[in-house]
Amino acid sequence: MAPVKLTTKEEIRQLLQDYDNFIFDCDGVIWLGDHVIPGAVESIKLLQELNKTIIFVTNNSTKSRRQYTEKFTKFGLDVTKDEVFGSAYAAATYLEKFTKLPKDKKVWVLGESGIVEELTALGYQVMGGGDPRLNEKFHKDTTPFLPIDPSVGAVVAGLDTGVNYHRLSITLQYLRQPEVEFIATNIDSTFPQKGLILPGAGSIIETVAYASGRKPIACGKPSQNMLNAIVKDKNLDRSRTMMIGDRLNTDIRFGNDGNLGGTLLVLTGIETEENAMKQGTPKYIVNSLGDIGELYK
Amino acid sequence: MAPVKLTTKEEIRQLLQDYDNFIFDCDGVIWLGDHVIPGAVESIKLLQELNKTIIFVTNNSTKSRRQYTEKFTKFGLDVTKDEVFGSAYAAATYLEKFTKLPKDKKVWVLGESGIVEELTALGYQVMGGGDPRLNEKFHKDTTPFLPIDPSVGAVVAGLDTGVNYHRLSITLQYLRQPEVEFIATNIDSTFPQKGLILPGAGSIIETVAYASGRKPIACGKPSQNMLNAIVKDKNLDRSRTMMIGDRLNTDIRFGNDGNLGGTLLVLTGIETEENAMKQGTPKYIVNSLGDIGELYK
Repeated sequence: MAPVKLTTKEEIRQLLQDYDNFIFDCDGVIWLGDHVIPGAVESIKLLQELNKTIIFVTNNSTKSRRQYTEKFTKFGLDVTKDEVFGSAYAAATYLEKFTKLPKDKKVWVLGESGIVEELTALGYQVMGGGDPRLNEKFHKDTTPFLPIDPSVGAVVAGLDTGVNYHRLSITLQYLRQPEVEFIATNIDSTFPQKGLILPGAGSIIETVAYASGRKPIACGKPSQNMLNAIVKDKNLDRSRTMMIGDRLNTDIRFGNDGNLGGTLLVLTGIETEENAMKQGTPKYIVNSLGDIGELYK
Repeated sequence: MAPVKLTTKEEIRQLLQDYDNFIFDCDGVIWLGDHVIPGAVESIKLLQELNKTIIFVTNNSTKSRRQYTEKFTKFGLDVTKDEVFGSAYAAATYLEKFTKLPKDKKVWVLGESGIVEELTALGYQVMGGGDPRLNEKFHKDTTPFLPIDPSVGAVVAGLDTGVNYHRLSITLQYLRQPEVEFIATNIDSTFPQKGLILPGAGSIIETVAYASGRKPIACGKPSQNMLNAIVKDKNLDRSRTMMIGDRLNTDIRFGNDGNLGGTLLVLTGIETEENAMKQGTPKYIVNSLGDIGELYK
């Protein structure tokens, strides 16, 4: 069935009757980097007033949920930590709920503070990450990270702009232990930043995956590990849940693979209406998230 | 045909009659890191006295041929630059002889001084590599490497223990230009160093390959690009040429894929005689390179 472009008050009101739960991708939907998309805040506030369940998902693993709420506050939105599912949080909860790694096991992190903060919040002792001793040049005889710690039970890896040979070498030593779990926050090959395309989490992780001959368990969109965690955590009725995003191959696929009641593509990100119509994967299309609040009036 | 284990004076003398050219892998054959293998130097000197053509090959791209000759000198061997084929040299000559990149094009290097030195020796202007400005944290607005230089015609990538997000990000910008060639010195996933297994050239390169969705042309063993370059450069009769190495899946495969007259496995590296007999790929096996000089007497 071809996607339906929503352009009238009646269509929006019907949509808000058909769905109770709204899962939002953030970048390209609510904001573009540090710039909020016009009307997006008002549309989210409308959903809050209508007592809809709102969840924000993001594959950006460099920030924790707490750090994300600060960004929402800056834009004038009242969002709690429990409403945000970042890929760092998804990886941490996967480790706790699905892998069931005991809390007396340590976790080695290749990644930034978002991952460290989420793992610590769940009670895991964390090594690696942004530890400044890892900024030193790698030498086998002087690194304080060898020999490896036998109490490490998992490697959690994500985007790390502090990546260097020291971090990669120690991470590899842990991955060479077959009993150590290997979890990726997400495997996006790139991400856009201010007009540039930069290496994403998946590209950084690929180094140690190739070196170790292992494949990580991926937690971010479009992996259903993330959606299953959300549905379980929030006790959602999938048929009354809608995914809103700006990318067909991650956001819309994320919702369709998870058998959600609906998917809504916004055109404020990288996708074009023409391509979305051709692919036919979203159920609905809207020019901008701002249209929901605007048309509802 | 099962491999023949060489253990007698007659067998060695026959071998030296049957072959004019000897291609040596270095690590695990002549030395183990900084330790020379007993008798190896004497065996190579014997071949030199018999006027054999000798070529040393290595996938280590961090050293140039000139830097390698210094290592041979340290061990008491008189070896010239022309007798050494490192993967950095192989990549540089591939660019010149096969890709035919014009000399007024620049080359962006993700790798160490060996690559930079070999490219410079061939007359290419090089950017990137160990440039200290790339040690700074990456910021789009402050990096002196953006916008990218339109005169760059190729990326040459190899092992880089100075790898960081700045180097990866700029390398990706060049690889996103489809007309820019993508050459890898080698794609070894790991290499051994003092009892550790560390990330190899292939693992570092995998980052930017995954991010760009491109696959590099690989030059090191077992790629035939390297052997073709040697045979062409030295005008060798393949049937009178023998490959000597310590690894079945790189060295011995390198010789067999290239239809060389013979392959000889030494047992001073990582391979066992039992496994070599089972696989059956080398034509000959000898305990150590030292045995050639020892048994010849």
